[in-house]
Amino acid sequence: MQLYIGNKNYSSWSMRPWVLMRHFALPFTEVMVRFDSFEPGSCFKQTLATLGAPTGKVPLLVDDAGTVVWDTLAIAETLAERFPALPLWPRDAAQRARARSLCAEMHSGFGALRSHCPQNIEAHLPEVGARILAEHAAVQADLARLIEMWQSALAQSGGPFLFGAFGIADAYFAPVVGRLRTYALPVPAPVAAYMQRVWDSPGVAAWVAEALAEHEFLDFEEPYRTAPV
Amino acid sequence: MQLYIGNKNYSSWSMRPWVLMRHFALPFTEVMVRFDSFEPGSCFKQTLATLGAPTGKVPLLVDDAGTVVWDTLAIAETLAERFPALPLWPRDAAQRARARSLCAEMHSGFGALRSHCPQNIEAHLPEVGARILAEHAAVQADLARLIEMWQSALAQSGGPFLFGAFGIADAYFAPVVGRLRTYALPVPAPVAAYMQRVWDSPGVAAWVAEALAEHEFLDFEEPYRTAPV
Repeated sequence: MQLYIGNKNYSSWSMRPWVLMRHFALPFTEVMVRFDSFEPGSCFKQTLATLGAPTGKVPLLVDDAGTVVWDTLAIAETLAERFPALPLWPRDAAQRARARSLCAEMHSGFGALRSHCPQNIEAHLPEVGARILAEHAAVQADLARLIEMWQSALAQSGGPFLFGAFGIADAYFAPVVGRLRTYALPVPAPVAAYMQRVWDSPGVAAWVAEALAEHEFLDFEEPYRTAPV
Repeated sequence: MQLYIGNKNYSSWSMRPWVLMRHFALPFTEVMVRFDSFEPGSCFKQTLATLGAPTGKVPLLVDDAGTVVWDTLAIAETLAERFPALPLWPRDAAQRARARSLCAEMHSGFGALRSHCPQNIEAHLPEVGARILAEHAAVQADLARLIEMWQSALAQSGGPFLFGAFGIADAYFAPVVGRLRTYALPVPAPVAAYMQRVWDSPGVAAWVAEALAEHEFLDFEEPYRTAPV
C-alpha cells in the first residue's frame, strides 16, 4: 500500500492515517506530495490528478490492487476491515459505535477550531491562541465539546486512550491534540494528561519528529507567523 | 432500534439513515423530533439532550441495548456491521472502498451546495437555483464534482445505482438528488436518469411522500420563500 501525504508540519488530515498505520505497524510506503500551492496548476494538484485522486486532496491510500481510497474516514474503515486481527476499532460493538460517532463528528465538525487554529506542529503560539479563544465563541464551543467528549470517553473506558488501547479515534484526534498544544488552549488536567499520552504514543511521536525535521515554511499555511523561529 | 429524525421536508441528514433502513426493511421505530428552533432552550435541543445526544443533532440511532450513535456515517457503518447478510455496502472490497470514499466526501464536503440550496422537498425553486448557480462559482464546482462522481461510479458499476444495487452511497446522495430537483440545477441526461431512479426507489419515495404530507412551514428553514405554495 502507498499512502500519499502532504507536509507533516501542516497536513492534519494526512497525519491521521499515517499515525494509525505506523502505530499498528501496517505495511505501507509513504509518498510525500509537497505542498507548493493549492491552485489548479500547482505541482501538488497535478500530482494528485495523475494519481487518480478525484478531490485533489491528501491523504490518499492506494492499495496493492491499485484501488484509490481518497478520504481519511474511508481509509480508516478500509484498514480496519483489511486487518481484522488488529484492534483498530474497539472490539466491543457498543464502544465501536461510539468511536465511529466521535470520528464522524470530527470528520465534519470543529470548523471554527480548524479554521482559526490551523495545524502547525513546530510553532508555539500561546498569545495567538489566547486571543482567538477570547474573540471567537465558536472556538470556545469547539474546545468545550472536545473536553466533554474526551472526558466522557475516558471515564467510560477507564483509559488510557479514548476507548482503552490506542486506536482509530485517538489517531483521529491526534492533530487536534497538536492544535491545542500549538495554541496553548486551556484544558483540565486529566485532558492534558490524555493529550500527553497521545503525543508520546509511538505513531504520533514519529510523525511529530519528522514534522519538526521538515523546516519548510509555507506562507499560505502561516496566518500568524512571518518566519520560522 | 429507534431512529430519531427531524422534519422530513427539511432534514437532509435524517433522510439518509431513514431511507437506508426503510429500503432494506430494517426493524426500527421512527421518532420525529420536530424542529421548533435550534436555540439552546428549544424543545428540539432539550429533547435531544434528554436522549443523550452529545451534539444536539439528528439523526440519532439508539439500539436495543441503549447505545447512542449520533452521526449519519457512524449509523451507516453500524447498520452495515449488524446486518451483514444485507448488501448495505458493495460486496466487492474495492467497490466498498470507493463507496466509503464517496460517502465520506459527502459527509464533510459540498458546503456551498448545502448552504445555498437547503433541503426543501416540497418547494420548486428553479429561478432561485438559476440565480444561485450563476452567482456562486463554489456551487458550480460542487455540481460539477457531483456529476463527475456519479457518472464515474455508474460507468464503473454499470448501474442502475452508484455501485450496482441501491446501497448506502445512494441513500447518502438521496438528499442531494432532492436539492438538484428543488433548485432545478442542470445535469446531463444519464445523471438525470440516475436521479429519477433514486427518487423512485422505495425508501426514498416513502420519505418524499411523508415529507410532502407534513405541511409545516418553518421560517428559519426557508431563505427563499415567505409562504408555502
